[in-house]
Amino acid sequence: MSTLSEVAARAGVTSATVSNVLRNRGRVGEQTRQRVLEAVAALAYRPHLAARALAEGRAPTIALMVSSIANPFYPEFALAVERAARTSGHFVIVCNTNQDPLAGRAYLEQIAGTLSEGVLVMNANLDFADLHQTEARGTPVVLCMWERPNDPPGLPCVAVDFRRAGELAAQHLLERGHRRIGAIVGSKRSGIHAARYEGFVDALRAAGVKLPRTCVRYAPDTIEGGYAAARELLDLHRDTTAIFATNDLPALGSIHAAFDLGRNVPDDLSVIGITDIQLARQSRPPLTTVAVPTVEAAEMAVSLLRELIERPPDTRHTARHTAREQPRVCVASEPRLIVRGSTGTPRRKRG
Amino acid sequence: MSTLSEVAARAGVTSATVSNVLRNRGRVGEQTRQRVLEAVAALAYRPHLAARALAEGRAPTIALMVSSIANPFYPEFALAVERAARTSGHFVIVCNTNQDPLAGRAYLEQIAGTLSEGVLVMNANLDFADLHQTEARGTPVVLCMWERPNDPPGLPCVAVDFRRAGELAAQHLLERGHRRIGAIVGSKRSGIHAARYEGFVDALRAAGVKLPRTCVRYAPDTIEGGYAAARELLDLHRDTTAIFATNDLPALGSIHAAFDLGRNVPDDLSVIGITDIQLARQSRPPLTTVAVPTVEAAEMAVSLLRELIERPPDTRHTARHTAREQPRVCVASEPRLIVRGSTGTPRRKRG
Repeated sequence: MSTLSEVAARAGVTSATVSNVLRNRGRVGEQTRQRVLEAVAALAYRPHLAARALAEGRAPTIALMVSSIANPFYPEFALAVERAARTSGHFVIVCNTNQDPLAGRAYLEQIAGTLSEGVLVMNANLDFADLHQTEARGTPVVLCMWERPNDPPGLPCVAVDFRRAGELAAQHLLERGHRRIGAIVGSKRSGIHAARYEGFVDALRAAGVKLPRTCVRYAPDTIEGGYAAARELLDLHRDTTAIFATNDLPALGSIHAAFDLGRNVPDDLSVIGITDIQLARQSRPPLTTVAVPTVEAAEMAVSLLRELIERPPDTRHTARHTAREQPRVCVASEPRLIVRGSTGTPRRKRG
Repeated sequence: MSTLSEVAARAGVTSATVSNVLRNRGRVGEQTRQRVLEAVAALAYRPHLAARALAEGRAPTIALMVSSIANPFYPEFALAVERAARTSGHFVIVCNTNQDPLAGRAYLEQIAGTLSEGVLVMNANLDFADLHQTEARGTPVVLCMWERPNDPPGLPCVAVDFRRAGELAAQHLLERGHRRIGAIVGSKRSGIHAARYEGFVDALRAAGVKLPRTCVRYAPDTIEGGYAAARELLDLHRDTTAIFATNDLPALGSIHAAFDLGRNVPDDLSVIGITDIQLARQSRPPLTTVAVPTVEAAEMAVSLLRELIERPPDTRHTARHTAREQPRVCVASEPRLIVRGSTGTPRRKRG
């Protein structure tokens, strides 16, 4: 493989000039530019990304930390991140933490600042202290889908109003006439789905509808987790007419539970989720859900990260420590209700 | 961040010695080793992956080319690849080609040999000429799930006997008593699913069962593609009692089509797929399928790629050109039938 200096020698210019031509930077006369391009072609020169990045004190990739790439939401998000990142010439390294903060820390220590010049964090269950340390070492960090726009995390983030998503789900079920409702929360009580649940409960309360404690289950954020929780809820409260799940996967699990109990969705049970993953459209019946702006959030996160990367390191490092500048919070569009076949009006009780 | 030479200076040894200690290589006395480790700790030295790889003439990642990470099979495979790659200290860059050979070529040109020291190819619809060129430039390439163990592709590969998978699917439907069968092929006629389909047809033929042309559909390898194809098949041949799909996604689409037509699976229609993706277990009814050894194939592919990377470049480059050595073909375990709820015996005709 030919090198930058070979190209420079052949064109009779400095390596810096070759670099400027290739990146459309600096002032280079047209004749010189032509000579460089001819030398590039003649030598079949391909820029060596890793070498170039190092020479510029940069790393050529961005890292995307996710809790598990096998969760169907993450590939959709990763795809959007990759598309956005490619426009700035970055490649994406997907890092699975498997919900393990130690695995996450190991990734951060190994690649932040060396292989990756920025880190996107998507629900990867990381220790905030580790993220702050990564920042302090000069590698920008962006949280991708922070749940509470009005309660910023102290790190740059893209926020989605998930509280609003919970409200929209509640309002839809109320409008359809449901009053005996169960809820499945796909995180711990104080975990990442708390805002969605709060929005849901507040909207019910505003309508004078109670959600007793026994009608709420905290479950793993999976189809299987939602399945088991829905079975429990429906066993305990046979008159439940609707289930709200804080995410699409447990909502899909609830549909399966109804199927196995011989209950028709939506005639015997309405089910609503949040997110609008591909599977929501593909299930039978298709899932009513509150869509969050996944692609938009991915693009905003990449764009914010790029902005932080391109800042002079001095201002970047100190941003956190000065009172003048708080970490950036970019708020994505509002969630919106998507009505599909899994919700309807409750059957009237006989007699 | 401290450098290797700072560590070396503090320990009073050469950089090479520090490197040897950190990688457990070469002969280093115990006292020296201790001194180096103390210096590493004192300076909080972290090896700079990209720099180290470059200094050794290596790139620190492997590239995994897939046609779309949003297809639910690929994340499962990517996860297995990542786990295997981490054991040799490699990070994985997932490259989506979106079925576009030009996008694939762009990836190969940009990262093979610079950012990635090896390339895994998973059904990414790449031009073989591009792959051979990548090899010729010194970057090993491994095809991850070649469909025909007995008909090697001229590139190193992990092969799975998909013909056998098709046979097993046919034998299962025949044993359950099905004779009026439809088939959905998730690729072009001569495409990557041809071997599965051949195995299926040959097994039917051996049992004296015909599969008329009008009972076969070539469709996109998606839930939607399978849905549309199954609707067509069931409209045209109302007496069809079973559908074989060459992949799980079109099989799941066939279940949805039956649902929308008011046909019960498996009472009115049996459905069988190939692969055993997570969704196969999670659908209602759960999908009968022929499982292929996904995790094993991923591990074999990484291990073969690592072997090729570690070969001296001389032998690596010429392997393809000499008669003495053909590209390696590693054959993974045989596919096996997994019977779940989507297949049963056909209902008897009345009268």
